[in-house]
Amino acid sequence: MQSIQSEGYPVIFENSIPELVKFVEQGNYSRFFILTDENTGEHCLPIVQTALAHLDNFDIIEVNAGEENKNIDFCVGVWKMLIDFGADRKALMINLGGGVITDMGGFVASTYKRGIDFVQVPTTLLSQVDASVGGKTGVDVDGIKNIIGTFTQPRAVFMADEFLHTLPPRQILSGLAEMLKHGLIVDRQYWDTLKTSDLSLPSTELIHRSVEIKNEIVLQDPHEKSIRKALNFGHTIGHAVETWSLLNDKDPLTHGEAIAIGMICEAWLSNQKTDLPDNELIEIIEVLGGLYPHYQITEESLPTLLEHMQKDKKNLNGNINCTLLTNIGQYSIDNICFADELCDSLRYYAAL
Amino acid sequence: MQSIQSEGYPVIFENSIPELVKFVEQGNYSRFFILTDENTGEHCLPIVQTALAHLDNFDIIEVNAGEENKNIDFCVGVWKMLIDFGADRKALMINLGGGVITDMGGFVASTYKRGIDFVQVPTTLLSQVDASVGGKTGVDVDGIKNIIGTFTQPRAVFMADEFLHTLPPRQILSGLAEMLKHGLIVDRQYWDTLKTSDLSLPSTELIHRSVEIKNEIVLQDPHEKSIRKALNFGHTIGHAVETWSLLNDKDPLTHGEAIAIGMICEAWLSNQKTDLPDNELIEIIEVLGGLYPHYQITEESLPTLLEHMQKDKKNLNGNINCTLLTNIGQYSIDNICFADELCDSLRYYAAL
Repeated sequence: MQSIQSEGYPVIFENSIPELVKFVEQGNYSRFFILTDENTGEHCLPIVQTALAHLDNFDIIEVNAGEENKNIDFCVGVWKMLIDFGADRKALMINLGGGVITDMGGFVASTYKRGIDFVQVPTTLLSQVDASVGGKTGVDVDGIKNIIGTFTQPRAVFMADEFLHTLPPRQILSGLAEMLKHGLIVDRQYWDTLKTSDLSLPSTELIHRSVEIKNEIVLQDPHEKSIRKALNFGHTIGHAVETWSLLNDKDPLTHGEAIAIGMICEAWLSNQKTDLPDNELIEIIEVLGGLYPHYQITEESLPTLLEHMQKDKKNLNGNINCTLLTNIGQYSIDNICFADELCDSLRYYAAL
Repeated sequence: MQSIQSEGYPVIFENSIPELVKFVEQGNYSRFFILTDENTGEHCLPIVQTALAHLDNFDIIEVNAGEENKNIDFCVGVWKMLIDFGADRKALMINLGGGVITDMGGFVASTYKRGIDFVQVPTTLLSQVDASVGGKTGVDVDGIKNIIGTFTQPRAVFMADEFLHTLPPRQILSGLAEMLKHGLIVDRQYWDTLKTSDLSLPSTELIHRSVEIKNEIVLQDPHEKSIRKALNFGHTIGHAVETWSLLNDKDPLTHGEAIAIGMICEAWLSNQKTDLPDNELIEIIEVLGGLYPHYQITEESLPTLLEHMQKDKKNLNGNINCTLLTNIGQYSIDNICFADELCDSLRYYAAL
C-alpha cells in the first residue's frame, strides 16, 4: 500500500517497523529516545524494542497513560529526562503510543532546545487516523484540551496494523468516530462503505483512505485558517462533553464516544441551520446510535458544557463557532451557534 | 533612521511608540495583551499605556522581574491568564520588557492555541541588541538557560530609546557586552568605534549597527546550523558563569558581566587554539577589564562550571563546543574544547 506524502514527510503503511529501523539507522542521530506509556510499554514497545535491539544508542522514557496526564507537568518531566540523558540537538524522539503520546511527545520535541527531530508511531486507531497528519502538537492546561502546542511536522509516521490487534473494542470505536467524520464532511461514498463494513477492526484500506482525506484537507490549510476547520465537525460540542466526562465520570468517555455525541448534536444543528435534510439527520443518528452507547446529559450540566465550549480554541470574538453539514459529504465552516441552540441540540440528544 | 528588515518583519527605530499604536490599530486583532514585569511596569508601561489609552480592548499581564522567574511555571501562569481573559487566536501579545519578558512572552505566544501574533518592545539595551532579531524564544528549566523554546518570529519590533534613559549603568553595561561581541566576531571597525565612544549611553546609531550585524548573521542561518554559532562567542563559558552566579550569589552577575568574563576566557582559548594574536588578546582584556569589574572564580567552582557547560544546547556528541576568534573581527565556529583547556582559561581569568 502506497505511503501518503504529507507536508514534507511520508506516512508509511507497509513494512512499517523495518522502515522505522532503517530510518533510525540512516538518520545520523546522536541518540534516540522512545517515549511511551505503560499500556504501550506492555503491548507495543516489545515489538519495536526487538526490532531496534542491535542499536545501543537509545533510552526509553515511560510516562503514565491517560489524557489526564497530557499536561505541562509531564512535559517538564520529559524535558528533564532529556537533559539528564544528555540529549543534544541531533537527538531523535520516537513517539510510540496513542494520541496523548504523539501530541505531547511532539510538543516536547518541538520545544526541546528549540526543536529536535521526532517521528510518530501511533499505536491506536484514533491516533493513526487523527494524529498522524496535520502537524498539531499539544498539551492540556486546566483540563482545556490542547490549549498549548505548536504546528510542527514529524520527520515520518509509521503505521503498523499489528498494534491494533491488542486494542480493546472501545478503543477501536474511538478511532472509528473520526473515520466516520471524514466520510460525513467530504466523502459520502466513504461513509457508505464504512456503514456496510465489518467495523470490529477496520481494514488497512479503510484507515489509509481516512488518512488520505485528512491529509488532503490539512495540506490545503496547515494552520487552520479556513477549510481545515471542516475537521472540527462534532468537536465543538464533543470536546465539551469529553472535558465534562473527564472531570466527572469514574470511567470517562473515550474521545470517539464524545465526538459521536458531538456529531449527533451538530447534525441536529445542521438540520436547523444549514439545511441538512431530515433523512440524512436520521441516517447519522441511526449509524452512530447503533455503534455508540447513549450517554446521559442532564439539564444541570448544560451551563458547564457551554462554559467549556466558550473556551474552545476555534472561537473568535467571543462567538462559539461550529462546523456543520449541508449534506452528508459536504461541510460548512464558521457557523456561529448561540447558547440556546447549543443547549437545544444537547437536549435533543438527551431525549433520543 | 531606517528600519531593519528581518525574517518577514521590521525592526523600527524611529517614532517607535506611534508606530506601535498604528500597528495595533490597523492589525484587526480581537484583543491585545501587554506582558510586562514590575520594573518595566513602573518605568516604561506608563509611556505605552498613555499612547494606547484611546483603545479599550487590552489587558495588562504583570509578572515578577528577574531571570529566576523565566521558567515554565510562569508560562503556565500567563497561559492561564490568557485563557481567563478569553484570548482567542486573533489576540496579540505585546512583550514590553527586557530579555526575560521578550523570550518568555515570545514562547508563551508561540505556543498558546498553537501560536498567536506577538510584537517585541525591548526596554533594556541588552534586549534591544540581543533579543530583537533572530526569532529565538525560550525559558529555563532547572536553571538551564533557554533549554525550552521555539524559533518563532514576532510581527514587528519597536525600539524606543526613551526606555534606556531610566536604566541603571550596570544594565547599560550588560547590553554593551553583546555590542562589543558583535564587533569582535565580524566587524573590527565597529569594535574600534565602540572602544573610543562614550559608552555611558550608546547612541542609537551604535545600537542600530549592532542589530544590523546580528540580523545579517541570523538571516543566513535562522536555525543555528552553522554561521549563527558565531554569536555564541563568549557564551559557552559566560552562560556557565552566569548560571553559577545566579545559583550562588546574593547579587548575581548580569548577563553582560558574565559574557564579558566568557569573552576574556574564550579570547585566551582563541590565542591558544585558533591563533588570535597576543596583542589582540591583550587589547580585548584591556577593553573589557576597563569596563567590567573583576569577578572571583575559585578553583573549587571549576567542576560545577564544567557541568553547566556540558549541558549547553550547542554541544554535540557530548563535546563542548566553542566559537573562538582568529582575529578581532573574525570568528571560527565548532572548536571542541576539552575540560583542561576550559579550566585553564578560567584560571587565566582568575589570575588577571
